[in-house]
Amino acid sequence: MDAQNPHPENSLAPDPQLISLISEVDGRAAETPVSALFMQRWSSRAMTGEPIPDEILFALFEAARYAPSSFNSQPWRFVYARRGTPEFERFVGFLSEFNQSWAKDASALVLIASQAAFVSQQGKDLVSGSSSFDAGAAWASLALQASLLGWTTRAMAGFDKELARVGVNAPDGVKIEAMIAVSKRGDASQLSPDKQAMEKPNARKKIAEIVFSGAFPGDC
Amino acid sequence: MDAQNPHPENSLAPDPQLISLISEVDGRAAETPVSALFMQRWSSRAMTGEPIPDEILFALFEAARYAPSSFNSQPWRFVYARRGTPEFERFVGFLSEFNQSWAKDASALVLIASQAAFVSQQGKDLVSGSSSFDAGAAWASLALQASLLGWTTRAMAGFDKELARVGVNAPDGVKIEAMIAVSKRGDASQLSPDKQAMEKPNARKKIAEIVFSGAFPGDC
Repeated sequence: MDAQNPHPENSLAPDPQLISLISEVDGRAAETPVSALFMQRWSSRAMTGEPIPDEILFALFEAARYAPSSFNSQPWRFVYARRGTPEFERFVGFLSEFNQSWAKDASALVLIASQAAFVSQQGKDLVSGSSSFDAGAAWASLALQASLLGWTTRAMAGFDKELARVGVNAPDGVKIEAMIAVSKRGDASQLSPDKQAMEKPNARKKIAEIVFSGAFPGDC
Repeated sequence: MDAQNPHPENSLAPDPQLISLISEVDGRAAETPVSALFMQRWSSRAMTGEPIPDEILFALFEAARYAPSSFNSQPWRFVYARRGTPEFERFVGFLSEFNQSWAKDASALVLIASQAAFVSQQGKDLVSGSSSFDAGAAWASLALQASLLGWTTRAMAGFDKELARVGVNAPDGVKIEAMIAVSKRGDASQLSPDKQAMEKPNARKKIAEIVFSGAFPGDC
């Protein structure tokens, strides 16, 4: 399996090795073996920008669609733009200069928003207290499905949320959460030198820094 | 594959069928084929409460650990309690009466919190604007790894967050996000009749209600 590009074709058959439990990959280690899928996924910036087929892009949205949410409120909303369209240029315009420099090469840009207000199964108007949290669950599902299909994603906080809100005609009550770049992974050499140095899987805190038995330690 | 209990043993070898693209399972349908993993996962309440081995519980935390986050800030924190411990009884006490009635049978309860403040790679004190969103990404990763290993999870918003905050000794600045029940799936018959009726995969909005090209529609 070529770690850089495990799916040179647009394969719709994920590699079964991706769910095998592993302890190490690409400089990352797990203290307890974990499915490769989770540890092998990383947010690259080098992007080929090749056209993304419907059956890939919409598989990502399906994965997101089936994420869990409080009261099944499904607060997530996705607005996408494909490279080469006027909408894509508009989306690139929301981004910080730093993010524009690489995300302009994405195959698609996706804005993720959340709608806290929902109607319960019993027909009551309610407001979810966990709409951002739930939208994050949908985002991870999208990212993992992309990884399974050989595509890469990178979420961005570096954009003008007010510009984006107006630019995508977001209804009142909708919160702009993040923007996502989607593509096949490109070659690091296409990035500026400062970004080339960051083009690798990043590290994580130790389990002991994020997982506690019974209670947070006093010195946390 | 027995959909109710695909892993009667504590298998550490996920079923490769779980990443195959499918269009339908257990009354759920996808408009575009999606990896079974995402559509097959659902949040059951019937729980066997059997002991959860370390290599399972900590595989879930590893999956969460490798979720993406803004500036790699890793805002997620997990506090867990295993069934049969005083900590577990304390955790059950945070829950609403409705959730207590079934979640008392979980193998473990996990509180998810987030810490927005972080120190950047350059040593700057920063505050993430997407810590709840990122914690949700970690939660989805945990839930999907559980599903791959034949365990079930259900997140709860129905608990007393202030009681939980004090009960787990949460530091200032930590936000309590959700509580999670983890177990092997039990038999629906162990639930009260009202909950038995809900013990099945729930439906989702149509793709056209959550995914838009270029902008939200005017009537959204």
